[in-house]
Amino acid sequence: MLGRSYDDQVCSIARTLEVVGERWTLLIVRDALLGTTRFDGFLRRLGIARNVLTGRLNALVQHEVLERRPYRHRPLRYEYHLTPKGRELTPVIISLMEWGDRYFDGDGGPPRVAEHLDCGGHVEARLVCEVCGRAVAAAEVSSRPGRRGGAPMPMPLPAGSLVPAHAAESKTGP
Amino acid sequence: MLGRSYDDQVCSIARTLEVVGERWTLLIVRDALLGTTRFDGFLRRLGIARNVLTGRLNALVQHEVLERRPYRHRPLRYEYHLTPKGRELTPVIISLMEWGDRYFDGDGGPPRVAEHLDCGGHVEARLVCEVCGRAVAAAEVSSRPGRRGGAPMPMPLPAGSLVPAHAAESKTGP
Repeated sequence: MLGRSYDDQVCSIARTLEVVGERWTLLIVRDALLGTTRFDGFLRRLGIARNVLTGRLNALVQHEVLERRPYRHRPLRYEYHLTPKGRELTPVIISLMEWGDRYFDGDGGPPRVAEHLDCGGHVEARLVCEVCGRAVAAAEVSSRPGRRGGAPMPMPLPAGSLVPAHAAESKTGP
Repeated sequence: MLGRSYDDQVCSIARTLEVVGERWTLLIVRDALLGTTRFDGFLRRLGIARNVLTGRLNALVQHEVLERRPYRHRPLRYEYHLTPKGRELTPVIISLMEWGDRYFDGDGGPPRVAEHLDCGGHVEARLVCEVCGRAVAAAEVSSRPGRRGGAPMPMPLPAGSLVPAHAAESKTGP
């Protein structure tokens, strides 16, 4: 468990990171999306210790991100396949990839490109407003408490707003 | 550094996780997006050890995700503000949040909602195809090597394709 500032704080980001925030876990998901299914395949691609990989795979199975399927019976051996829940991490993976492409790509284009199976077009992660339908830049996003309400989070700081940052912070100050 | 399977492997996801993949780092970014700016604010919200927080904040400043701004001169004290580069992690944070909302939200709606500053509408992370313009489901995404080409990654496994998973895997097999 990640420590959180309030026992009753409910945060979907923290909950997600409890599942995929351990070192290596998102790279295992990346490789699973790229078609790796076997223990030795992950081991070879990631170069991590066997016991660490075993622990991560077990946790991902437990959280239903991966599922085990036997591919040999004597001796019994399993492959690891993404569940639909695991595949829904695609936007997380693509967002991480796009940020890396943008800020580390010094020499000649992105190493991999996400592609639409239907038409072969380049797939991008975009923030879209459900109401006005427009693509939204990071600086145009704020947040507010959801229906569950009472989560003790500070009010958001709208980017570029006239409220200085320390004013937002002081709302939770002593 | 995260270990990688090939010294010459170039992966934007791994590079991004080298910056934001340490335990706590993405929760610091989350809190910065929510308006937290001061050391004690992060400390109180995250409940982590001071030395861990110091290390994470220093690393984020070094990677230009956060910048320090003095808010008091005697003694000298700094606030931490997201840079534009840091704010561009918003799609990563929102994707993590949406996955958590989807799979952990048992009781009454998401704890927080991302909001479009302009119109107040709900902001969603979507995968969009640049060519056909359509919203793309996770199962419709594949990937291919980018312009840089030779990165030694296996070919993608299209979800629902007729190629069984072990065939994709065997391409990198011994």
